[in-house]
Parts: sequence; C-alpha cells; structure tokens
Amino acid sequence: MATPSPGYAITVRVEAPSSSTATSGLAAAVSAAGGALTALDVVESFADRLVVDVTCDAVDSDHAESITKALTQVAGVTVRKVSDRTFLIHLGGKLEVNPKVPLKHRDDLSRAYTPGVARVCLAIAENPEDARRLTIKRNTVAVVTDGSAVLGLGNIGPAAALPVMEGKAALFKQFAGVDAWPVCLDTQDVDNIVEIVRALAPVYGGINLEDIAAPRCFEIEARLREALDIPVFHDDQHGTAIVVLAALYNALRVVRKSLDDVRVVVSGVGAAGHAIIRLLHAQGVTDIVACDRRGAVHPNGEGRDEFRRWIAENTNPRGATGTLKEVLAGADVFIGVSGPNLLTGEDIATMADDAIVFALANPDPEVDPIAAREHAAVVATGRSDFPNQINNVLAFPGFFRGMLDAGAHEITDAAMLAAARAIADAVGPEQVNASYIVPSVFDPEVAPAVATAVKHAAHATA
Amino acid sequence: MATPSPGYAITVRVEAPSSSTATSGLAAAVSAAGGALTALDVVESFADRLVVDVTCDAVDSDHAESITKALTQVAGVTVRKVSDRTFLIHLGGKLEVNPKVPLKHRDDLSRAYTPGVARVCLAIAENPEDARRLTIKRNTVAVVTDGSAVLGLGNIGPAAALPVMEGKAALFKQFAGVDAWPVCLDTQDVDNIVEIVRALAPVYGGINLEDIAAPRCFEIEARLREALDIPVFHDDQHGTAIVVLAALYNALRVVRKSLDDVRVVVSGVGAAGHAIIRLLHAQGVTDIVACDRRGAVHPNGEGRDEFRRWIAENTNPRGATGTLKEVLAGADVFIGVSGPNLLTGEDIATMADDAIVFALANPDPEVDPIAAREHAAVVATGRSDFPNQINNVLAFPGFFRGMLDAGAHEITDAAMLAAARAIADAVGPEQVNASYIVPSVFDPEVAPAVATAVKHAAHATA
Repeated sequence: MATPSPGYAITVRVEAPSSSTATSGLAAAVSAAGGALTALDVVESFADRLVVDVTCDAVDSDHAESITKALTQVAGVTVRKVSDRTFLIHLGGKLEVNPKVPLKHRDDLSRAYTPGVARVCLAIAENPEDARRLTIKRNTVAVVTDGSAVLGLGNIGPAAALPVMEGKAALFKQFAGVDAWPVCLDTQDVDNIVEIVRALAPVYGGINLEDIAAPRCFEIEARLREALDIPVFHDDQHGTAIVVLAALYNALRVVRKSLDDVRVVVSGVGAAGHAIIRLLHAQGVTDIVACDRRGAVHPNGEGRDEFRRWIAENTNPRGATGTLKEVLAGADVFIGVSGPNLLTGEDIATMADDAIVFALANPDPEVDPIAAREHAAVVATGRSDFPNQINNVLAFPGFFRGMLDAGAHEITDAAMLAAARAIADAVGPEQVNASYIVPSVFDPEVAPAVATAVKHAAHATA
Repeated sequence: MATPSPGYAITVRVEAPSSSTATSGLAAAVSAAGGALTALDVVESFADRLVVDVTCDAVDSDHAESITKALTQVAGVTVRKVSDRTFLIHLGGKLEVNPKVPLKHRDDLSRAYTPGVARVCLAIAENPEDARRLTIKRNTVAVVTDGSAVLGLGNIGPAAALPVMEGKAALFKQFAGVDAWPVCLDTQDVDNIVEIVRALAPVYGGINLEDIAAPRCFEIEARLREALDIPVFHDDQHGTAIVVLAALYNALRVVRKSLDDVRVVVSGVGAAGHAIIRLLHAQGVTDIVACDRRGAVHPNGEGRDEFRRWIAENTNPRGATGTLKEVLAGADVFIGVSGPNLLTGEDIATMADDAIVFALANPDPEVDPIAAREHAAVVATGRSDFPNQINNVLAFPGFFRGMLDAGAHEITDAAMLAAARAIADAVGPEQVNASYIVPSVFDPEVAPAVATAVKHAAHATA
C-alpha cells in the first residue's frame, strides 16, 4: 500500500558514461526499482563522462538503499555519494531566534538594552498586564513535550522529540505568525512537569502540550489550566478534536445527515479519542459509543480513572456492549484514533447506509481506506496520500493566533467549536464532496479564518 | 553628573505657527530645558501652521516631562502627543522565532515535519550525540533568570525581567549568531531552579544564568555544572570577570606594571566580585584584598558561606584589616563592583603611584570618575558616557560562540582567560592608552576573536 514519499527522498550523485542514453538508463533503473524520480541534474560534464544528481522519492530507508543499489548496477555507473534530503533539511536545526529591533549602534543599545530597558522593566513591575504589550509574551507559545508519545514512535525521550517540536514551532510561524518555542523536558513526572511549565509561563501567552502520553496528559493539562492564566492546549487532544469535528460537519453535509441524529462509534480513548468525544458531546451529539481494546465502554466497566469514568457516564445511552466490530453495526459514523487494521471492508458494510469512516491511525489506518470506500460514502484518514487528510495543521496555528489576539486566559468549548466551524466553512458549499471535506493544509485562508472565529468566541465568553 | 541619553529619548508631536522662526523656537526651548535635540521633522504643513516631530534625548523621565512642558510654553505651540522612543522599540517584544527551512508545499512538510521527521527522531534516539547535528541544540543558549537581581533594579520578578533577557538574547544573535531564548522563572527556590534548568537542557547547547541574586547564584551554578553536560555560565560572574581581566591587562600595559606584582583591592563580594577574585587568582595575582560592607575579608571573619570562605582562605595574604578606605592605601588596582559613592578623589590619592581604578557600580560608580582621574592613571566605569566602558557585551556572545563551536561540555578557567586575552588584544599596541583599554562594543572583530580563542582553549582542555 505504501507509495514513495518526499519524506524519504534521496539524492544519489553518480558518474555515468557520457553516452546519449546515460541519463535515460539512470531514470529507467530508478523506475524499475520502484522509486519516483523527481530530478536528474547534470552537475559536471566531461568528454567521456557526466556527474549526475539523481533525486527520487522512496518508500522507506530499505527502499532507498535498494534504489541506490539498482543505480550501481547500471553499466558504467559509479555512485559517489548518497544524500538523504530529509536529514539535510534538519542539519543545524530548523529554527532561529532573531532580534526584531536594530542593534547597530550605541543609541539602539541604549534603548533596546541598558540603560533604557530599565524603565520598561519598571513599567511591567508596576503593571504586570503590560507584559503583553512590552514583551514577546503577547505572541509567544511554548510547545511542551516530555517525549513520551512522539508521533507513532512512542517514548523516545525529550532530545529525540526535539525535531518534531521544532517542526511544530516552524508551522506556527509559517501559518499564523506565532512565535513558538520548543520545551522538551527531561522528566516524565506529572508533578515536575506541572511545576516546570507553571514556572516557565511568564514568557508565554499560551501553552501547547504535545506528544505526552495518556492518561498523564489529562492530569497535566487539567492542573495547568487551573494554575495558569494563559490558554493550555493539548494538540493531540484539542487540535485533533477540532479538525475531526470540522471534517464531520462537511461529511454530514455530503450524506445529508444531522449531528443530532447520527450514531457515532469512536475507537480509542487515549488523548485524541477522549477529546473528540468531549467535543462531540459539547456539540450535542448524543449517541456515542466509545471502544477501547476490550470493546464498548459502558457505565458498569471497572477500574477506570476519572477521565475514563467521564466517558462511561456521558456516552453509550443505549448501553451497548461487545467488541468494536459488534457495536459498529448500524452506526452512521466511525472515528478511529486507535491502531492499525482493526476492521475490514466487510465490517464497514455492516454500518448504516451512507456511512462515514474516519480511520486516523497513522501511518496504518484502522481499515484500508480503499476497502472502506467500497462500503462507506465518505472516508478520511490521517495520511497525505489519500483524499480528506485530517491534519492538525488546519487548527493549531489559527487557534493560537486567535487566542493570543484576544489576550485569552483559557480555552473554552465555544472557541473550539468556532474553530471547527471555520475550518469546515473554508470548504465552500459548491466545493464540498465525498473527496473534499476538509480544506488543503496549504489553503492560506484557513488560519486567518480560524483566528478570527476563535478571537470572537474568546471575547464573547471573556 | 547625568547627561541626556538616547535611553530617555522622546518624540513630541507639536502644532506650531508656520512662521519662519517656528522651528528655531522649538529647538531653543528644548535646549533651554537641557534636552539634547536629535531631530526636527515637519510631518504636515498648512498655510498657517506646521505639525512638527521634535525628537530629543532627556536625562530621565522627569526631565522628559519638563522638556515637554517647555515646548507647551512656546508661543502658539500645542503638544499633540508624546512618544517615548524606548517604549516604542519594546512594543510587542524584541525577538521572533523563524523557520530556517521552507514550508511552502507538501514536499517541504513531508521532510521538515511528518512523516520524514520520524526518521530524524529515531536517529537521535539511537545516537543522542546526533542532537547537536540535527537540532537547534548546537546553536542555542538559554538565558535563565529568576528576576531576583535585575540590573540595578533588584528583585522585580520574572515578568519584569523579560525585557532584559530579550535584549540579551538579541545581542547574542547580533554579535555572534547564537540563538538565545529567555527563560524567566516564576520561582526563586534553589532546588526548583536547578531541577527546572536541568529538565530544560535537552534543547540547549549552553546555559547563561543572568541577574540571579548572590549567594543563591553560586549554588545554582555549582549544582548545574555538576548536573549538566553543557556549559553553565553566569554572566554577572563570568562575563564581568572576563572583561575586567581584559581591561586590567591593558591598564597594566599603560602603567607598565605586572599582574604578578600588583596589590589589588576588590570592593564587593557578590556575584561579580566573587568571580573577578577567582579569575585574578587563577591568573596568578597573589595580593588581593576583598572588601564587603564591613571592610576587608580575612580568614578570621565569621558567619561565612562556603563561597565567602573560599575568598577568606585564598586572598589577603598580608592579613589586612580595616575599612575599604583603610586597605585602599598603597594599592595599585581598585576594582569596585559594589555600590555608589563609597570613595572620594582623596581616597584614590592614597593609592600607589599610577593607580588603576575600575569603579563599576551602575549607574553611579563607587567614585566619581572625573575626581578619580585626577589621582589615578587609568579609570574605567560601567557607563557608556565615560571612556573605558567595562561592558559584558564584549565577552558573552563570542564566549558562547566558541563554546558551541567546540561542542564544549563545561566552562574552564583556561577558556575564560583566553577570552580575556582576546578582548585585550583587540586593542592594538599602538592604540592602547589611558582612555582606551577596552575595544568598542561595536568592534566587529571582538566576538570572532573571542570565539576562536575560546574554541581553541576548549579543545585543548577537552
């Protein structure tokens, strides 16, 4: 199922004989090995030979190696060097910190630093609210992780998590002008994390928790919300929930069903599942059945923490029991934020007519989307190589832009619902169809629309 | 003694009659009020009147007000608006975080973020040393404060300290290309601060402690050095000590005395005094007498912490006792890092011939530098409006540049001595004189020279 991806792009520098067929031989070798050729650049040319940079996408690292091997086997060709384009882009890190003020001569220094800065400090000491006006606080978000649940890689620790947090910070700036900074903590103790983030908060206008394992993430988030007067957002929860709800709004438009009437099955009650369920509940969806590995969560289940207990008490009004496959029968909507290959096309066939399937486990969805599409009206995944990618990039930059612009002190359901609606509405009524329920992540109108909606919602509830 | 400074610059927008003498009347009013006029910009012109922006430097806030008042009293003039140029430069903060990688289309996203980033994370998880190659760690320094001893303002707290830390971070980038980030901690508990900085360290290649009160700063620094494998620098200590030593090298060249022979009196045993004494000691100066408020520190003094004890045990070989004024008699070098106006010109006159006076208390030195200069051969202060400004900007950017480039794990005396020597040598033998013992802070050759010297020293001791 996997296809070559730019995430696994390599550039192979080769020497080849300068015959008229040299480059076509290289292209053929890449193609025969299953690589997707993106460029053939002749970087040096001699009477008898060429130096050529062959750039192509591979499926994974092993595939990249087999493509390279295929090139060495072309007659007369020598491989000089293989560059991994993904690693190249990460060399030296992906962020820099730049002054916004000139520091070229003494007058600049006197104003931006000593002695002038002392007056600015005193103004903030006298009126702490001035920090939002006179410091970076008004535009700055901490991207906080303990490295315990990074992408699908698990507990790889804070140093190995940093490339993701840098990327996240880069997206904040690129999509919404937010200055975000990675905070990768070398501790996985809840008390420590809460105390550290609380102590760091003076510099920030918002906290974005990221890739922290459940259920620890719920307690950290709840305690930080209590302790801080700036918004605390857990992207794996709230970002995902916002985009899922946005996608659901439009999917329901496609199948002409209403949120009030649908039966929803959610597979996975970790960070994402929990938040999706809460947001659907806040939006008025009544018939939700949550499933964990043991099947449907219901009020009589045992050994649950307070977060599971909330789900048990607020969902499953029909008291459904059984496995995921069993409770799926007759459902209108399946939302998977769990693991790979839990369902087959036949399982999807047991759902109600015009079923909606969001199979969001990454990289391998809960059900093969192609098989699902045979039995469902709308299918979405977390992957970029299928239609309808549910991608948090649609939500978090604009969401924080709106929060910061509002000077918001907390995140409300109203703000999240407003963000979901703004994302959904970025797909016009004439555009929406089964293969286009969410806008492109590169649609430049999404983040500003989300920001405006969130800012208004934050002001309305302030 | 105070003169108008760009740190207190204002722009006053006035309406004035459009007579030929209007602007000269404005200039005269500013001048009569003691302001230093820097610009008169006519921003609008009508038949009968002009709108003029009057920009001038004042001594302090009260003076700025009295200049404004003087302008309102010019015949026919109305003041529309007064802008404080220092506050203007701080609006919205002084730093931004920018992506160094393109994020314009899907291929960029696939490499810089998911799915490509996962491979980079795994590479670091397998080989933690790769964090210095593949993340911002290799070029990033945390500027850490608890807001307890900010400039001369005292314990104003973390939010009010942020403008200084932003300025510091801006200088790191401007002078040495180092990405620095402010960490203003809402705690003044030593254990907490040590634990927090330890937990934050995965993102950083160095820690710059800043404006943390003594003696707490000594313990924090010592414990962090023990806990971390990246350099921990306390600028108020080490930065100051490096620049003081650099200035002393050149002052001694001016008076043709040698470090081995001179008698040195240090007033102040806080962060700066402590570090200066240690570095002079490391450099082989034997006759140092340290003074606190009670006078000379000597081995029989009582109630001392371990840091004071070190001073008592390693200085004052002649067992001098008495007040600062008393022990100053016959000294070759006075270094003040204490408080304002402790000494007079007469006190300086009791020093040895060709005395060297570094009166570094800010904004008001230990002795009036003009009075001191009557009796000393070389006088330096911390102020920019006298010759020989001892300014840490000469040291910290290049110092960390060198540490980061060396991949250094700790700060050594050898690196600090190398930095001091490089700063001193940036003043050529033909340039050095009593009014020019340290290079300009805007000399572009200083930071690279310091970086190179520090990098070599770090490699030599690694």
